[in-house]
Amino acid sequence: MKLKCAWCLSCLFVASVVMANPIEDQIRIRQSTYAVMGWNTGKIKNQIVDHPETYHKDQIIAAANTLSALAHSNLLEELYGPGTDQGTGWKPTRLKADYFQKQDEVKEINTRLIKETDELKVVAETGDVAAIKSQFGKLGATCKSCHDLIRVRE
Amino acid sequence: MKLKCAWCLSCLFVASVVMANPIEDQIRIRQSTYAVMGWNTGKIKNQIVDHPETYHKDQIIAAANTLSALAHSNLLEELYGPGTDQGTGWKPTRLKADYFQKQDEVKEINTRLIKETDELKVVAETGDVAAIKSQFGKLGATCKSCHDLIRVRE
Repeated sequence: MKLKCAWCLSCLFVASVVMANPIEDQIRIRQSTYAVMGWNTGKIKNQIVDHPETYHKDQIIAAANTLSALAHSNLLEELYGPGTDQGTGWKPTRLKADYFQKQDEVKEINTRLIKETDELKVVAETGDVAAIKSQFGKLGATCKSCHDLIRVRE
Repeated sequence: MKLKCAWCLSCLFVASVVMANPIEDQIRIRQSTYAVMGWNTGKIKNQIVDHPETYHKDQIIAAANTLSALAHSNLLEELYGPGTDQGTGWKPTRLKADYFQKQDEVKEINTRLIKETDELKVVAETGDVAAIKSQFGKLGATCKSCHDLIRVRE
């Protein structure tokens, strides 16, 4: 019995380490992550779509690397824990209340986010602006599909 | 004269694109970037220093990749523009008022941040926990030197 209790405590301990961040922190980091993503997609839009005369290869590579690294950051597991459909990080969350009922679609979009950002990283390295623009369009569509699915409109 | 004016306007236009974000946005993205960095350094501290039994190689690689990509993101040029020593992003900035008088030291630390995060990325791939811990210590010292130099204590 003593051993069993020790084992349970150990499991609880590991679980608390894996999902260590309180709800408000998860929301705050989530909002920060998307602000950083927005900064980087904005940079790509500026330099590739709107003002190609300002294109700077290294900056676009860095932006693509950041987007890809963030997509690989275990977002769903670490920043969308139970209860994070309500609460305030930097500001009140915009996550829809039915987020937890849409897990199959969410996971499918997350897989696409990883795929499209990885591909963006590859084309950014080539410096082929037309290819970057095309891939950036695919990433944008992926972002939008998630916004439409789980984010309350402002 | 007409040509000269057109040239000036063109320069102004490019400058406004490069530093497009208003002061409050720069501060908000800056705070978000450091929140994301803190999330990732916290993950490494948890898994490598405090609870090595929770070590997950892919998560540490993703964390190191994120830190390195952000370090390469042109932070000083894009998020520390004139006037950003005052103002509110998600919250009032903690940048010290004499930040703009310390540019040599700031640039030196920024170069070190890039070097140490790049090296962390390399050791994360090896899966050598002792080497990751050692390199993480060097990164922590670099972070601290910047906090001490330019950030108001809370």
